[in-house]
Amino acid sequence: MSLLVCVTRKDNTKLLDTLNAQLPDVDIYEWPHCPDLAQVEFVLAWNAPDELWTQLPNLKVVQSYGAGVDGIAMHFLPEHVTVTRIVDSQLTKDMAQYVLTHVLAHKLRLKQYFVQQQQGVWKPKRAHQGNHVGIMGLGELGQAVANQLVDNGFKVSGWSASEKNIANVATYASQEQLELFLHKLDYLVCLLPLTKHTKGILDKSVFSLLPNHCVLINVARGQHLVEEDLIWALDNNELAAASLDVFTQEPLDSDHPFWLHPNITITPHCAALTSVTTACEQIAKNYLSLLNSDKLTNTVDRTKGY
Amino acid sequence: MSLLVCVTRKDNTKLLDTLNAQLPDVDIYEWPHCPDLAQVEFVLAWNAPDELWTQLPNLKVVQSYGAGVDGIAMHFLPEHVTVTRIVDSQLTKDMAQYVLTHVLAHKLRLKQYFVQQQQGVWKPKRAHQGNHVGIMGLGELGQAVANQLVDNGFKVSGWSASEKNIANVATYASQEQLELFLHKLDYLVCLLPLTKHTKGILDKSVFSLLPNHCVLINVARGQHLVEEDLIWALDNNELAAASLDVFTQEPLDSDHPFWLHPNITITPHCAALTSVTTACEQIAKNYLSLLNSDKLTNTVDRTKGY
Repeated sequence: MSLLVCVTRKDNTKLLDTLNAQLPDVDIYEWPHCPDLAQVEFVLAWNAPDELWTQLPNLKVVQSYGAGVDGIAMHFLPEHVTVTRIVDSQLTKDMAQYVLTHVLAHKLRLKQYFVQQQQGVWKPKRAHQGNHVGIMGLGELGQAVANQLVDNGFKVSGWSASEKNIANVATYASQEQLELFLHKLDYLVCLLPLTKHTKGILDKSVFSLLPNHCVLINVARGQHLVEEDLIWALDNNELAAASLDVFTQEPLDSDHPFWLHPNITITPHCAALTSVTTACEQIAKNYLSLLNSDKLTNTVDRTKGY
Repeated sequence: MSLLVCVTRKDNTKLLDTLNAQLPDVDIYEWPHCPDLAQVEFVLAWNAPDELWTQLPNLKVVQSYGAGVDGIAMHFLPEHVTVTRIVDSQLTKDMAQYVLTHVLAHKLRLKQYFVQQQQGVWKPKRAHQGNHVGIMGLGELGQAVANQLVDNGFKVSGWSASEKNIANVATYASQEQLELFLHKLDYLVCLLPLTKHTKGILDKSVFSLLPNHCVLINVARGQHLVEEDLIWALDNNELAAASLDVFTQEPLDSDHPFWLHPNITITPHCAALTSVTTACEQIAKNYLSLLNSDKLTNTVDRTKGY
């Protein structure tokens, strides 16, 4: 039995060093350099190519190298394969801090003042008054974000596929309650998992239901957003601004219209960066659990996709 | 008896309208248009010229049009004159939010990402790890700022002229403890009152005692800062960055070197803007108290200067 690492578009030096240190007796290979794919029962994957999944006859566990599993093509995997993900309490704290920071940055007009500074312009304005933040997706991350916003005096509403009960948060569920959830928000935060139901959910119809002064913050996945609909909404005053940490294609294309849009704030997918150390501890633990036929941690419901 | 308004460098239309509405039976004049200065017992002042104070033989109360009283030349005032200021709980909340926002903005590298966006550069970096904020000045504003930072997981220390006891805040007092207070900070926030003891306190000697990666946030008064010492500290890596809301001269001169310094963030004295409505309620209440020989509210200890 061996462990195959298929984490693409990243420098994996530290990851492989740390994994080798955690699992000194295990054969660890990095795709595509693996002498015998039939020996592979455990794959650590991120942005893995589809052809990988058809070449592993004895695959038992796919461990995602992140909090999401949308980079894993589930439909290629036999039913008995277990999918797990990284759950890192620091990621959750970082995400809550990112969202609070970007809500406050808009409220206090930081970008507007940065631009004024570059132009040598002195023009004080009152902070934006809106205080109502809506969060789509009330999983672990969404709940942590909600709590930190509530603690800082914001009014918070939440929307999710299934009904949730969270202290000090008005919750809405299902498509029927979406309009009710959206129509009074000052900020809309997307923290949904990426599934076939949520892909492209941030579109014209949602933007049209939001107040015109609303600010979108997308920290989930680029594919939640219909990018041309966002440009349309901003250019037609259906939406005031957007802070985006995720994009359909990353890194963002150098000629993408988002870069120079005055009402879009771009951060380079840095809201919650996986800690190699924490991740490797969880990967090693799951690998040893598989070896000892123990229960794996942070498994994913494959039908739900999260 | 009449009320004289001497608030310079501002458009006072809304202020005078609101005051006249609150005090319909009172003669309210705007400096220098006052038929009889001997009738004036109550002055509302902000950036008042020194010559004003020598022309008011019957002055009893000077009401500052703000939280600070540094715009009032105390040494010109006879000892029996009472000085009062505006205390607005919204100002306190706004100040706490401003400081939290600017600490978080630096921590999450917002300015760095704004500049990268303008250049079309995609370069994710981990957030700054430092979590220790020091606050100079532990009055009402300083304490509110400290509490909001503590609530958001920051380690907070405080320094003030007299000893204070604040839950979850390590406090230091007097010049002797200044070095101990400064030497481990990641952020230094100035919220001191401006007095002869605190003027120019943010100088080379303080910057040299701070860790090199420390960020200065000045939200008190421009005169606390020796401006050329800040430039020296930033250019010699004695300090990492500064967020400044206040300046020796406001608006900031168009050719001031702060505008284009890459490590200085400028906001146009907007951290906590006085609400005309709230201020006028307090001014009217104090005017009527003087008329009825009642106790005035928010009076200032003239020897301390705050």
